[in-house]
Amino acid sequence: MKVSARNIFRGKVAATRPGTVNAEVDIDLGGGDHLTAVVTLTSLKELGLSTGCAVIALVKAPWVMVLTDASGVKLSARNKLAGTVKAVEVGAVNAEVCIALPGGTEVMAVITRDAVNELGLKAGVAATAVIKASHVVLGVPA
Amino acid sequence: MKVSARNIFRGKVAATRPGTVNAEVDIDLGGGDHLTAVVTLTSLKELGLSTGCAVIALVKAPWVMVLTDASGVKLSARNKLAGTVKAVEVGAVNAEVCIALPGGTEVMAVITRDAVNELGLKAGVAATAVIKASHVVLGVPA
Amino acid sequence: MKVSARNIFRGKVAATRPGTVNAEVDIDLGGGDHLTAVVTLTSLKELGLSTGCAVIALVKAPWVMVLTDASGVKLSARNKLAGTVKAVEVGAVNAEVCIALPGGTEVMAVITRDAVNELGLKAGVAATAVIKASHVVLGVPA
Repeated sequence: MKVSARNIFRGKVAATRPGTVNAEVDIDLGGGDHLTAVVTLTSLKELGLSTGCAVIALVKAPWVMVLTDASGVKLSARNKLAGTVKAVEVGAVNAEVCIALPGGTEVMAVITRDAVNELGLKAGVAATAVIKASHVVLGVPA
Repeated sequence: MKVSARNIFRGKVAATRPGTVNAEVDIDLGGGDHLTAVVTLTSLKELGLSTGCAVIALVKAPWVMVLTDASGVKLSARNKLAGTVKAVEVGAVNAEVCIALPGGTEVMAVITRDAVNELGLKAGVAATAVIKASHVVLGVPA
Repeated sequence: MKVSARNIFRGKVAATRPGTVNAEVDIDLGGGDHLTAVVTLTSLKELGLSTGCAVIALVKAPWVMVLTDASGVKLSARNKLAGTVKAVEVGAVNAEVCIALPGGTEVMAVITRDAVNELGLKAGVAATAVIKASHVVLGVPA
């Protein structure tokens, strides 16, 4: 598989929680890193996802928010992945930010250059990647 | 809280409409401006959202569409926020557009430079920000 | 209608599959090209969508992933639109990629410049546009 998504997370299904229409899928990314996805029950069945399965989670970098100070706020987004900025690459309007999680997973975010400045993002700074569970596309080896 | 999202709307919960899985949350942004979000029932409960609560709504700028001529069309997106372009900042491929709503709320959109030209976006032009309710991340003071 | 979304697909509703909260809408784009959208039941009713209706589907270019090698993987995303790259326009961080589908529909994706290089995207290359059904905004003539 070759795909444009900057985030291609490989892991194992840790748990599935089927609802009436959608299902939450908890993914173990290794090293203690986790990601939660929401897919339709139809997709859950078509992909044959169950606990222990190998799974690929795709997230485009523009769908990732970056938070540097989470004090005093609780967010509805399922994934709040705390780590450390590894690199920042700045363009004319946008910038790519790479956040390394404790378990070794790296998350890429595309945010505005203004946000990079306001948040003081640079290598070594603590930062949290915020990802909506419904923005995660899942894949399985065919 | 410091977050990369260009849109950090602060308001009060005007109403919640719980469904079987998700809930719609109407947010009063002040000055007559409103925003609707869809979150899971789980999030609604975890955040303790009910009418009158202070709430923060986060929307990344690339998730906002800009419409200049809505004549002859009805859209499925819950939020169609009519206002006036306040500023446009153009980059190599993308551009940031700031739309001021009548009540004082400002909405930032990242769209392509081509779209800026086609829509003739510049300060003073009437424009509507289109935001899917499911693209809104909600937060509450912890 | 004038809108910033790079993808404005015009077609006819081929089928609707209402669920308890959401509904899937299959859209015939002509020439054998198809797109699937998920909207709320409320939107389905408000827009009056039923088989045979004219419909407009809006998708922002940053919401489109590009896949060049789908071998060995099955994805949860409803829309996997196989076609051929027609053009690539590269900026500082991002690039616009136009993929032509067999039936004549063109899909625009905004992806990173790095992804363009890694996937070897240029005119004539086979590529698949991946679009989540929940990222499609539907419209009807008012």
